Amino acid sequence: MPILNKDMQVCMSLAARPSNIGTRFHNFLYDELGLNFLYKAFTTTDLPGAVAGIRALGIRGCSVSMPFKEAIIPLVDVIEESAAAIQSVNTVVNDDGVLTASNTDYEAVASLLASHDVDRASRVLLRGSGGMAKAVTAAFRGAGFEHLTVVARNDDTGPALAAQYGYERVADERDAGAADVLVNVTPLGMRGDDEDTLAFVDDRIAAAHTVFDVVAFPSETPLVRAGRAADKHVITGAEVIALQVARQFERYTGVALTDDQVRRASEFSRAE
Amino acid sequence: MPILNKDMQVCMSLAARPSNIGTRFHNFLYDELGLNFLYKAFTTTDLPGAVAGIRALGIRGCSVSMPFKEAIIPLVDVIEESAAAIQSVNTVVNDDGVLTASNTDYEAVASLLASHDVDRASRVLLRGSGGMAKAVTAAFRGAGFEHLTVVARNDDTGPALAAQYGYERVADERDAGAADVLVNVTPLGMRGDDEDTLAFVDDRIAAAHTVFDVVAFPSETPLVRAGRAADKHVITGAEVIALQVARQFERYTGVALTDDQVRRASEFSRAE
Repeated sequence: MPILNKDMQVCMSLAARPSNIGTRFHNFLYDELGLNFLYKAFTTTDLPGAVAGIRALGIRGCSVSMPFKEAIIPLVDVIEESAAAIQSVNTVVNDDGVLTASNTDYEAVASLLASHDVDRASRVLLRGSGGMAKAVTAAFRGAGFEHLTVVARNDDTGPALAAQYGYERVADERDAGAADVLVNVTPLGMRGDDEDTLAFVDDRIAAAHTVFDVVAFPSETPLVRAGRAADKHVITGAEVIALQVARQFERYTGVALTDDQVRRASEFSRAE
Repeated sequence: MPILNKDMQVCMSLAARPSNIGTRFHNFLYDELGLNFLYKAFTTTDLPGAVAGIRALGIRGCSVSMPFKEAIIPLVDVIEESAAAIQSVNTVVNDDGVLTASNTDYEAVASLLASHDVDRASRVLLRGSGGMAKAVTAAFRGAGFEHLTVVARNDDTGPALAAQYGYERVADERDAGAADVLVNVTPLGMRGDDEDTLAFVDDRIAAAHTVFDVVAFPSETPLVRAGRAADKHVITGAEVIALQVARQFERYTGVALTDDQVRRASEFSRAE
């Protein structure tokens, strides 16, 4: 790392429980590219105060995580379409005091559906109804997918999510029809209590052509491993997080990253 | 520098025109001591917003420079005696949301008067009546000096400063009596337009036993050089700034610095 100096532009993140990923990803590339920036993760219990600080101190950019993604909306000046469509913000850019909010999770998923060439005629089964499920569902809708079923036990968020994007919802996976694309946007398979849980049953995997696990830690979830073992097309949460953070990096610094830079920074950010 | 990480505690400064000194001093010693801290200079045009940010983001400490030293007083929770006595703050420490203000300029000058063993019976001539002059004058009063004359052309701040500490004021140095200690707290001799200006006339220097120049940049001002050439006891602004920043460091981190650490960090901070 370069010696810190007064002229460095500062980017930061706000999350209830910060991880080290963003701090390591951004600073790795600032160093490699010789950008006079620093990035630091923060938490807060006072979101309006934190946003006042972003404005008053001229913080260049702020990544926004749970539980601030919706609450920050009234505190910014401009909402881009990517965030407005899902009423969820994960990125704020400060241009001379004007705060612009966007959602690079949405952008990353939309980009992956295109780059992986997922057939929009596919029948999609998407498990989950939280904030990230909204971004993913919206990206499927934005990409022109007509057939998607939300699997969510929650009787409030499940039906609401499906209805918002014109899809159907089931509470139990067994009530859903056949599916070509399986998407997991729940904590199933995530490091922790559910890390050994396969998000979809084997028969579902066997019948699908594509498996998409949005869980990023670990990158090799049970679903990803099962998808690879069954020779399915696999899209991983590691791809989502790398792309979304790369889009943030580009917005904060104005520097477009190569795939190789994103891959190496992403590996570094996970390597602690 | 270590790789930045999410758990680093952050210290910062607020100034209309930040210098690199604090950023280099603190980060040099964080690195050497292996402290998981980072320090960054900021400017702002919204002091209440900046202080809201300090609270909301859990910034550990903030150094305060012109023009915020008085304005920050109503925004903090506790004012220590060093700041209350002069109604001027240069240091804010955040203990779990409780902001405590102090003035390490005052502490540094008081400490130097003691360590240099300046005779408190001396007749002192002090040039200046700005914020720093207040800290220096208060330190002389606190150290028990009875005979001090403030030389200041300003007809508001000059008489007010002298009256506050029970000293006399003259507008013109020629109207002051004999003096043993000469103290410069003006920009005379400071890098810039006045860098070649000697703060006191040669006869004054010849008649004094001690010369104290609070100007820190450059460390070798015309007054310091003239004092050394005339074999006077000399106290420099470099000593003041090193001590005051060391006191800030100790308050932010809880780590007491050795003289050698202060000297090397101070040299590093000036070496860009």
